[in-house]
Amino acid sequence: MEFTFSDRCKDMRPSAIRELFKVIPAEGAITFSAGNPSPLSFPVEEFAEIAADIFKNEATAALQYSVTEGYPKLIEQIRKRLKERFYVGADYDETIITTGAQQAIELTAKALCNEGDVVICENPSFIGSLNAFRSYNLKLVGVDMEDDGISVEKLEKALKENPNAKIIYLIPTFQNPTGITMPLKKRKAVLELAQKYNVFILEDDPYVELRFTGVPEPEIKSLDTDGHVIYCSSFSKILSPGMRLGYLCAHKEIINKVTVLKQVSDSHTNIFSQMLASRFMERYDLDAHIKKIKDLYRSRCSLMLYCINQCFPDCVKHTIPEGGMFIWATLPEGYDSRIIARKALEHKIAIVSGSTFMADQNQISNAFRMNFSTPSDEDIVEGIKRLGDMLKEELVK
Amino acid sequence: MEFTFSDRCKDMRPSAIRELFKVIPAEGAITFSAGNPSPLSFPVEEFAEIAADIFKNEATAALQYSVTEGYPKLIEQIRKRLKERFYVGADYDETIITTGAQQAIELTAKALCNEGDVVICENPSFIGSLNAFRSYNLKLVGVDMEDDGISVEKLEKALKENPNAKIIYLIPTFQNPTGITMPLKKRKAVLELAQKYNVFILEDDPYVELRFTGVPEPEIKSLDTDGHVIYCSSFSKILSPGMRLGYLCAHKEIINKVTVLKQVSDSHTNIFSQMLASRFMERYDLDAHIKKIKDLYRSRCSLMLYCINQCFPDCVKHTIPEGGMFIWATLPEGYDSRIIARKALEHKIAIVSGSTFMADQNQISNAFRMNFSTPSDEDIVEGIKRLGDMLKEELVK
Repeated sequence: MEFTFSDRCKDMRPSAIRELFKVIPAEGAITFSAGNPSPLSFPVEEFAEIAADIFKNEATAALQYSVTEGYPKLIEQIRKRLKERFYVGADYDETIITTGAQQAIELTAKALCNEGDVVICENPSFIGSLNAFRSYNLKLVGVDMEDDGISVEKLEKALKENPNAKIIYLIPTFQNPTGITMPLKKRKAVLELAQKYNVFILEDDPYVELRFTGVPEPEIKSLDTDGHVIYCSSFSKILSPGMRLGYLCAHKEIINKVTVLKQVSDSHTNIFSQMLASRFMERYDLDAHIKKIKDLYRSRCSLMLYCINQCFPDCVKHTIPEGGMFIWATLPEGYDSRIIARKALEHKIAIVSGSTFMADQNQISNAFRMNFSTPSDEDIVEGIKRLGDMLKEELVK
Repeated sequence: MEFTFSDRCKDMRPSAIRELFKVIPAEGAITFSAGNPSPLSFPVEEFAEIAADIFKNEATAALQYSVTEGYPKLIEQIRKRLKERFYVGADYDETIITTGAQQAIELTAKALCNEGDVVICENPSFIGSLNAFRSYNLKLVGVDMEDDGISVEKLEKALKENPNAKIIYLIPTFQNPTGITMPLKKRKAVLELAQKYNVFILEDDPYVELRFTGVPEPEIKSLDTDGHVIYCSSFSKILSPGMRLGYLCAHKEIINKVTVLKQVSDSHTNIFSQMLASRFMERYDLDAHIKKIKDLYRSRCSLMLYCINQCFPDCVKHTIPEGGMFIWATLPEGYDSRIIARKALEHKIAIVSGSTFMADQNQISNAFRMNFSTPSDEDIVEGIKRLGDMLKEELVK
């Protein structure tokens, strides 16, 4: 028979990163292309203890159907941490557990946007979210990044030009892919624009706990006074991504709709994992655990920056992140980083071309993303050296 | 601020069953309203052993990001079981792991249907699926059930009247909510109609392993010759629903699209749970485990049927399921089962009114669903007696 698909997914491409991800490890390349946390960040022994305890004492609760909103104790723990640590969560807000922040983003789009509506995003931005918006036939309008995040001027221009904009999607802290963090002044300006043009901000904040240097900036959600900001984050970068555990904190009217949509999407998030995370926060020191991850990433990021300074040609610029997992390198104008990424692969180095992250998938980018959370020190030294040699050769040609 | 939601979810109501589910247990009522498997069916000790082993020997694989399609070993085990046990899976088919069969159904709708397209379903049918279709603004056309499943004549009428029908959604075996199983002759007729009108059949088969009496009917998918049948099932009723582990077997072109949509929905299904299920099938006897569940449900179903025959007034008809988890009782014409369900609640018995399961949510139904997998023998005896007394009183009035 002939297969015809819905309009919304006719043109969807598989995420370039995940496709790479399937190929690379088998070839034995040095991988700077992943978006993974370090396996050293997984609290394996603690999880083993908790799992044994759950199966001994609370097996039925961990294996039976549960409520869509999430494990009540975990919701309370998240609510408390968001409030006390980040001043996130007003009286009008509620929190729902999602199957990764990915689901929080997908369901927010489904709840708020009709086909053809506009989502404004940083350009570049996280491809998983961009593809979620694309999967509802939403129009992506990318706004250029400056050294300290999205251009406020160009954002206002985009808002003026797109009266059917529904969401401004932002990763204000240690952005994926650039590693850039938006300063307070800009956060305030962006929120004011959202209020002025009556558009939601979807603040995606998965890296916030991974600040290894510098002073924290307030979450945009903490500045919210009337429900314009929808906030999501996840346990992927501080406990385990394989668990698929994220959450959404937003005005209760939005959470009500998202709850109904989550019900039809997967009924509820894996309950054993929710209990695992909850018990971990109850019985162990999450902050001490996060400190270990930050120490590791600080060291790896420093090493990568040091090697870049030693090995890359001067004409290649790069960001200096204060946290998160990524460094963004920019070649001189006119270069196509897809060609550079392919070339790198010939030298058995995997990086991700900037065009992967563009709102317009056909836009050529002269930048690429490097991840420092997964490669070992040895791989960072060797990989950046090889990449530098290759770049010198390519950029001189 | 004022909240405006997408057209598709403006009118969505939370599932009546899950809403009940949140209320009932606190009140100490006897619950025939759940859709849960018995906690006695969870292989707790085996899972505890496997979990300890995974955290000891394969923790990184269980906690890191994984591929969207699912844990390769589990996919292979499912493929093999579907093929050898049910003759399901042709050369052109592939299988993807989903976060419960619920996700398989939601993603199939997203991949195949544009807003306004028609989904034809049994009337009554499973509300979780109906709501998934509603969440994409699809038009539901319910086709009446006969004693042996959907009316073929009325199905053809519905196909003729709805040229934009994309999917016929069916639960042919131990249907939820009726417990009815469609005989082979009808399965063939339905497939012929799907081919004639070029519409997909989405065969939802979560109860197939729970046949406790009678002779199995072939899956519609096993009769498929060209990809018209999309098949989904789950581990919820044979291992654990809290794990959220389902799968979709369909033509590879469909699986390709669904994979892209799953990527933006939740990246992948909880990997620890996938490994848990895979190891269970590898190291333990799944069939012996299922036999224990079937023995339990056979006994509970028999007891419930016995009590119904003893206690219900003769004018109340009911189905006699050969497997699954539900009995469907029908009052004389003109009665509204919502009133009966509310009345039952006053007597501390929870049942689910038939109108909950109707394609048209405003359709009044004179039937209700009773679950026999979760209540204890004592609760079945006491609950059916109380329900019978109440019905005698109500129906005589």
